[in-house]
Amino acid sequence: MSADDTQEAREQLIDLAAQFYDQFELGEIPHMSVPTRTKNNIEYDEDKDVWVYGDRESTRSANSVRGARKLLKAVYTIEFLADQLEEDRSSTLRELYYLSESWDNKEAQFSDQDESNGLIEDLEIVSGVTREDFHMRPEESGATIMGPLHLREQTRRGEREIHCQKDVGEGGYQIPNNPDTIDFLDCDADFILAVETGGMRDRLVENGFDEEYNALIVHLKGQPARATRRITRRLHDELDLPVTVFTDGDPWSYRIYGSVAYGSIKSAHLSEYLATPEAQFIGIQPADIVEYDLPTDPLSDSDVNALESELEDPRFQTDYWEEQIELQLDLGKKSEQQALASHGLDFVTETYLPERLGEMGVL
Amino acid sequence: MSADDTQEAREQLIDLAAQFYDQFELGEIPHMSVPTRTKNNIEYDEDKDVWVYGDRESTRSANSVRGARKLLKAVYTIEFLADQLEEDRSSTLRELYYLSESWDNKEAQFSDQDESNGLIEDLEIVSGVTREDFHMRPEESGATIMGPLHLREQTRRGEREIHCQKDVGEGGYQIPNNPDTIDFLDCDADFILAVETGGMRDRLVENGFDEEYNALIVHLKGQPARATRRITRRLHDELDLPVTVFTDGDPWSYRIYGSVAYGSIKSAHLSEYLATPEAQFIGIQPADIVEYDLPTDPLSDSDVNALESELEDPRFQTDYWEEQIELQLDLGKKSEQQALASHGLDFVTETYLPERLGEMGVL
Repeated sequence: MSADDTQEAREQLIDLAAQFYDQFELGEIPHMSVPTRTKNNIEYDEDKDVWVYGDRESTRSANSVRGARKLLKAVYTIEFLADQLEEDRSSTLRELYYLSESWDNKEAQFSDQDESNGLIEDLEIVSGVTREDFHMRPEESGATIMGPLHLREQTRRGEREIHCQKDVGEGGYQIPNNPDTIDFLDCDADFILAVETGGMRDRLVENGFDEEYNALIVHLKGQPARATRRITRRLHDELDLPVTVFTDGDPWSYRIYGSVAYGSIKSAHLSEYLATPEAQFIGIQPADIVEYDLPTDPLSDSDVNALESELEDPRFQTDYWEEQIELQLDLGKKSEQQALASHGLDFVTETYLPERLGEMGVL
Repeated sequence: MSADDTQEAREQLIDLAAQFYDQFELGEIPHMSVPTRTKNNIEYDEDKDVWVYGDRESTRSANSVRGARKLLKAVYTIEFLADQLEEDRSSTLRELYYLSESWDNKEAQFSDQDESNGLIEDLEIVSGVTREDFHMRPEESGATIMGPLHLREQTRRGEREIHCQKDVGEGGYQIPNNPDTIDFLDCDADFILAVETGGMRDRLVENGFDEEYNALIVHLKGQPARATRRITRRLHDELDLPVTVFTDGDPWSYRIYGSVAYGSIKSAHLSEYLATPEAQFIGIQPADIVEYDLPTDPLSDSDVNALESELEDPRFQTDYWEEQIELQLDLGKKSEQQALASHGLDFVTETYLPERLGEMGVL
């Protein structure tokens, strides 16, 4: 992130606090409105092609002691963040929670971490600045990249130029917490292949899939961290790379795809920043279980419930997903991506992926 | 791993299969004995300073259909592993399980993954070769290193020389699944600081702790992967670096320390390879909760049970641990490592760690 962005984030925060002064001057009770963050209040933005919050708002107002305390905490947090940005430092959500114990006003201290996490989300939404730009680091680190990409990362210790095949070990390039510190210098990749499990990621690297097909292999490590989703979005936007997602064939993995493509309900305000609506699902599709005769496990009750809840989820209401989910409920079965090994260790790279990526128009 | 090691691992496996032929010739029923892997069958090896299996054994014998089937599966697996080593390929435990579906003899196929995992452990124990040397990759990847270490990693794509401060981004160097492919070229570090949480790892890197104190910061990511424990052991053995472990102050985190220092019951046969008995615990110690006046949470019932079970665990039967665990049960409280932020973001690097490492004789 550049010094300009830091300055801008700081100004946005100070503007928020200044609002309260304006409200005082106008004789209003200080207040702050934020969109309600529930499933009923997300809607599709046709222009931007992402899910965003609807019009429902809830208001934090100083007209009650409880509301006044919320605003007090917001102001203390804004001051902390503004100082942090001025000193070019950063901190985690958990550190913010503990740090509040050192604040001089006991009323401003957080009673639990849900409260401080929620406040940071509020501030993201009302300021339009992401928490990374507040220099709030996530706890979970991003995953890794392997493929023909040359990048420059701005670190606190100076710039680092790294080629994500030639300058890294077999583990790949570790995505930093804030990938907006990265500039893409040169890229020979034709598409991004985001992979759920470490075992499959290692299989693709061992089989040289990134070299043979000019793929950028991004390891999702299960539910992807914000940093992983952010860099995927940037690679798509800035380098015009198609994004494909390869997971296990069960409802939990479809949610992983959903989080890459549509974002999560809790962070719909960040969809434009984190989600890649053009991301395509490779599989394991329920149809693949039949077509490739894969080893399966029976669906558990919680699998069935999760599939049924996906049928109700606006993010999965497309013909494609309805067909696949209905098929899976009929089959009563699920398969893992590593089940492809039942046809040999090269089946995934020599047969399955080339066929699927061909069907999808990526290869 | 060198070509010689690969050849040796392959020969060990083939020797195992050859044993069955010898047993046939001697008119014996083919069988294989392995140590029992339970808490009652681990004991302290004074010479090697690690916990190892005792004398209790269980025998897989072809004198029953069930036993014969177990040996059949072992022989098929040995053949698969020997071929894999010959072709210089690798695979995951999960791939082995699925791959067995392609074997011509249905009786040799695994009925679930616990069975194939258990068999690989049996083969490790009886052959004295680790699964990494069979080229079986773990599912979970290792964590990251940041610090003054220059290394060379042998990858399938050639050698990579990487300095773990100068050639990496803020995320650090990603430890490969098999760290025995690494040679240490040059190291200016004075000690290893293994850290449980990502938030604290990032704090130490942001505050430049690795530079100021010549520390190798190894991120454990919760319960450490085999690769992380292995490289820690090698750094200790080959570079003579003291190992210190910094975790949250609760019974689950003491187990993380225990897994670095003593290994786990399930992998006592690997203690010599994975465990670093000289590793010292920094904290958060129960005594630190009092001394540094840290924010706490009350112990839950499961915390209390876990502490009481640690008092019974041979690996924690030292004066130090008994005192700390008794103190914690008296206090009824636990603290996270990030709770140090209640004294400011620099407290951990300017006060807590220098004081604790001084007491421990590391600084």
